[in-house]
Amino acid sequence: MQTNYEILKKYNIKTPKMKYVEYNEKITFDTFPCVLKIDSNSHKSEKLGVITDIKNNKELQNAKKKILKHNPKTDLIIQEEIKGIEFYIGGVYDEIFEEVILFGMGGKLLEINKDITYIDIKATKKEIISALKTLKCYKLFEGFRDIKIDINKIINLIQNFQNLLKENISEIDINPLIWNGEEFYAVDLRIKKEKTTKTFQKKSHSLFKNQNIAIIGASEKKEKVGYAIAKNSLNSKANIYFVNPKLKTLFNQKVYTIDELPKIDTALLSIPTNFVLDTIKNLSLKGCKNFVVISAGFKESGNIKDEIELKKLALKYNLNIIGPNCLGIYNSKTNLNLTFAKSKIYKGKIGLISQSGAVLTALMDKASAKKIGFSHIISMGNMADFNFANAIYELNNQKECKIISIYIEGLQYGKEFLKAIRKSKKPILIFKSGKSKESKKAAFSHTGNLSGNYEMIVSLSKLAGAKIVDSIETLIWYKNIKDVFIVTNAGGPATILTDLLVKKGIKLKDIKPYKKQLDKVLPPTWSKNNPIDIIGDATAKRYKDTLEILKNENIFLIVTPQFMTNEKEIFEIIKNYKNVIPIFLENVDKKLDVFDSLEEATKIC
Amino acid sequence: MQTNYEILKKYNIKTPKMKYVEYNEKITFDTFPCVLKIDSNSHKSEKLGVITDIKNNKELQNAKKKILKHNPKTDLIIQEEIKGIEFYIGGVYDEIFEEVILFGMGGKLLEINKDITYIDIKATKKEIISALKTLKCYKLFEGFRDIKIDINKIINLIQNFQNLLKENISEIDINPLIWNGEEFYAVDLRIKKEKTTKTFQKKSHSLFKNQNIAIIGASEKKEKVGYAIAKNSLNSKANIYFVNPKLKTLFNQKVYTIDELPKIDTALLSIPTNFVLDTIKNLSLKGCKNFVVISAGFKESGNIKDEIELKKLALKYNLNIIGPNCLGIYNSKTNLNLTFAKSKIYKGKIGLISQSGAVLTALMDKASAKKIGFSHIISMGNMADFNFANAIYELNNQKECKIISIYIEGLQYGKEFLKAIRKSKKPILIFKSGKSKESKKAAFSHTGNLSGNYEMIVSLSKLAGAKIVDSIETLIWYKNIKDVFIVTNAGGPATILTDLLVKKGIKLKDIKPYKKQLDKVLPPTWSKNNPIDIIGDATAKRYKDTLEILKNENIFLIVTPQFMTNEKEIFEIIKNYKNVIPIFLENVDKKLDVFDSLEEATKIC
Repeated sequence: MQTNYEILKKYNIKTPKMKYVEYNEKITFDTFPCVLKIDSNSHKSEKLGVITDIKNNKELQNAKKKILKHNPKTDLIIQEEIKGIEFYIGGVYDEIFEEVILFGMGGKLLEINKDITYIDIKATKKEIISALKTLKCYKLFEGFRDIKIDINKIINLIQNFQNLLKENISEIDINPLIWNGEEFYAVDLRIKKEKTTKTFQKKSHSLFKNQNIAIIGASEKKEKVGYAIAKNSLNSKANIYFVNPKLKTLFNQKVYTIDELPKIDTALLSIPTNFVLDTIKNLSLKGCKNFVVISAGFKESGNIKDEIELKKLALKYNLNIIGPNCLGIYNSKTNLNLTFAKSKIYKGKIGLISQSGAVLTALMDKASAKKIGFSHIISMGNMADFNFANAIYELNNQKECKIISIYIEGLQYGKEFLKAIRKSKKPILIFKSGKSKESKKAAFSHTGNLSGNYEMIVSLSKLAGAKIVDSIETLIWYKNIKDVFIVTNAGGPATILTDLLVKKGIKLKDIKPYKKQLDKVLPPTWSKNNPIDIIGDATAKRYKDTLEILKNENIFLIVTPQFMTNEKEIFEIIKNYKNVIPIFLENVDKKLDVFDSLEEATKIC
Repeated sequence: MQTNYEILKKYNIKTPKMKYVEYNEKITFDTFPCVLKIDSNSHKSEKLGVITDIKNNKELQNAKKKILKHNPKTDLIIQEEIKGIEFYIGGVYDEIFEEVILFGMGGKLLEINKDITYIDIKATKKEIISALKTLKCYKLFEGFRDIKIDINKIINLIQNFQNLLKENISEIDINPLIWNGEEFYAVDLRIKKEKTTKTFQKKSHSLFKNQNIAIIGASEKKEKVGYAIAKNSLNSKANIYFVNPKLKTLFNQKVYTIDELPKIDTALLSIPTNFVLDTIKNLSLKGCKNFVVISAGFKESGNIKDEIELKKLALKYNLNIIGPNCLGIYNSKTNLNLTFAKSKIYKGKIGLISQSGAVLTALMDKASAKKIGFSHIISMGNMADFNFANAIYELNNQKECKIISIYIEGLQYGKEFLKAIRKSKKPILIFKSGKSKESKKAAFSHTGNLSGNYEMIVSLSKLAGAKIVDSIETLIWYKNIKDVFIVTNAGGPATILTDLLVKKGIKLKDIKPYKKQLDKVLPPTWSKNNPIDIIGDATAKRYKDTLEILKNENIFLIVTPQFMTNEKEIFEIIKNYKNVIPIFLENVDKKLDVFDSLEEATKIC
């Protein structure tokens, strides 16, 4: 076991002076006070496996007797006693993210304080610092009372640990890691070896090269998915070939058999499960590279075998296979709607990636109602092959896409996912659904239980540079707002809105630069502060005067039903201002495109 | 200073063996290891004011020299050294809540861990236990590793501390309070004396005895508040007297002067500020007990003098004065709408109390749209006299009111407020708006900064028995739901909803009792679990079959726009089931009274 501590030396992690003794060996030491403990991978204090504050060799003999009485025939470790602040550093090999570091407050009460952050082993120095800043104990690095720990020492230690984790280790815990006022010392170590690795396939063909498309399983029966997709595809500028051996024409177009097809680049499959594999193989031999598999009946119904075959086909023939069990894709370049969703899709700048078909249709529907457009949509389905990392790389190559929005339930290839986020030149928004039973389990218990939990996915993605949103609608409504003015005709709702915005990290800007101008148009009782309370008797004109002064700012504008309020007149005015997010706190004419609750409005950021 | 520690003995709080020595006195002690520290109210470790682990009298001499070098001419305390787990207990005299206890993890890193709970000095044993359960360190009382602290010992200590705080103390800090495995020891004490008290007036007349009501300032001018109130009052079964010296008739009724009025019990004042005080005095001499002051121009405009006079009038003549600067009141018993709100008010069982007029009108508007009714409404305004505690007592005496909903911005008479909550026989819902700048300040820093912060109001009210809601709409939509089934035609949204519900403490019930029945009506691929996924091709009939089986359960029902979904047919079915909260994740016909987002629906609980 002494060799375990050796690995720390190799990576420049300091340990206290120590000595390893077998249970039947004579025991002496030369540095006091010291600690005697059993050489074990379990919690030593629970079985009287550790005695501290040993002052001389006589006490050491007695300590040995006492420990061996409770732990017969156990080998022992003697350590110089280090006093100071107790931290924790650990590493785990996680199924999704592979090597991940955990750092935070340590000691016996580690699981009680739970002040721990995740750090990827490829995290840059900047990411490490961001991670440290999420800790409550970060104050100790900034200076708290008489304590100020050199932050560079912990950054170095974490970087050394990043290198250490490249070794064949599946779990490692250093607890406590003690700061004695000058250095960090790894005082107690538990380690488990052996990890496995998996490989990620980077795609060499663009998913969105869609010039010649076959819809296999196009149908004339209105209740079939194959009908809806064929119909949705009609407005595209690309060449669409319907395929169905039983049909001659559909929507006045010729219907093909597979053998009759010209060379195609993209095939959508809405056919019975047992034909899917052969069809893909057949078409890929003819040069088709992109496959969108709508058909269900794979992993989600317990058919794992065919799902693995799909992955093998993708690897072998160098394909992009979307799905199976998905809703389809949309490509704004040729106005190609290869989905069976009912909503009208507007052209826009959002690239939307969703793991759930139902969440996707709900989002498409809300987007359609507010006329928000998409550059691309990918319904990921089971992700037999094409996964989130692939999707992020793909959308980075599409110039129409300006922002990437992702709805995630579970992740694969976490390392590559983080890499894709880090490399992305476009902002990435993520909503992660949590599956409560898992997320309710302590986000941090012991390293063994960490696999794929909500906390880890969210915090690592955030450190890598993604924006984590806390409501699904934000994926389509998002505006990059950092500071705002609130204009209101009542104090109460403005207070609530302030709370909601501050919770999201949005700042309320200083009123100073506008105060004089506002004084001229507002009654003397106005709030003279942000939120700008323009008083309950505010008319449409008073709203207009205020907006005119603040026309270069982001504004949340609240209209409450007061005695003098004329909502429709106010609406007519604000609709001319692009910088305004209007909230009408009453059930106004349904045609007014406004938010009618404060919470709803804050979902844009 | 030794006398400070004496007070602990008086209340049976243990201290280590200790001795007080003046700086020029000779120093000896008889129990080792011991601690030497300066006798000071500041953080001792910051100016080298404490030395621990002193093993004999010789080391004690050296320690004294060292400490006096950094702290010349300072008196000292020698203490037996106690080792163990460090807690904190403190008390503060707060402006709103008077004496409040704080308890949690202690030691040097107290402000970093911030694992602290508030406890009222009148808290019952049950409340104390509830408070302890909010702490992360509660695990130490349940048993964690080899640690298990007798919970009765901490309850006793807190109860002793409740008695101690009745002394004339404004601030007290015991940090650390050490658990040595057997007992708690108050190791370090800081104390500040002297507090002030204030008195609360309990009301002897019911606010809602409204048989003969005068509306003073009733107006024929449509743009005046006095017009809206007079008009709203017309449907009441009570006797309404309009008062306006310049008018003869209004709405075909006689208009009175004040002198002509018969004996009235309730007067509403919508008149210029400078007439308010005299009018109240005048009418109270004639036996009027209830005053609703709509008029503004008091504290909110800096006129504190008249606001204090209002309070004095209430005390002197034993009145209920609502407002000033309020929206009015509503009493369902005689259908009396004495507000100037535009919304129609339905009769119902909610007693709604709001500090903000704008929040109140927004809530009344939403309630009206969903036909939710009220038993009583009180717009509190500035609360010169009648405050939240009065309102809770009042609504407890009104049998039509079954639930009390309160919107709070700031509180007065916190102790009485908690008492009213504890005594309430009706459930109390509270939404507290936070004023972020204050709530952003660490909720717990030092005892001095604790006054009236969001955290304290919310946690003490909760411990006293109120339900704290996290969205304003919940004040009117609330249903007391503890466990639910989710019925859905898609997995993704159900996962998100599960997260939202679990976060609110709602449980997902076990499917077992219904499994066999559901097997009969659902396709074989249904989820066999709660959430009950009845699969994307679910028809209206399948929804109906499922609801019929679950008709005795609370159900969140999700309808996502899938290819086969017929939303209107489904709506026709579910509207017959009262136990269903329907969520239609697409923009269905606006007339359907359903929620169209998952977050919105969870606001009912």
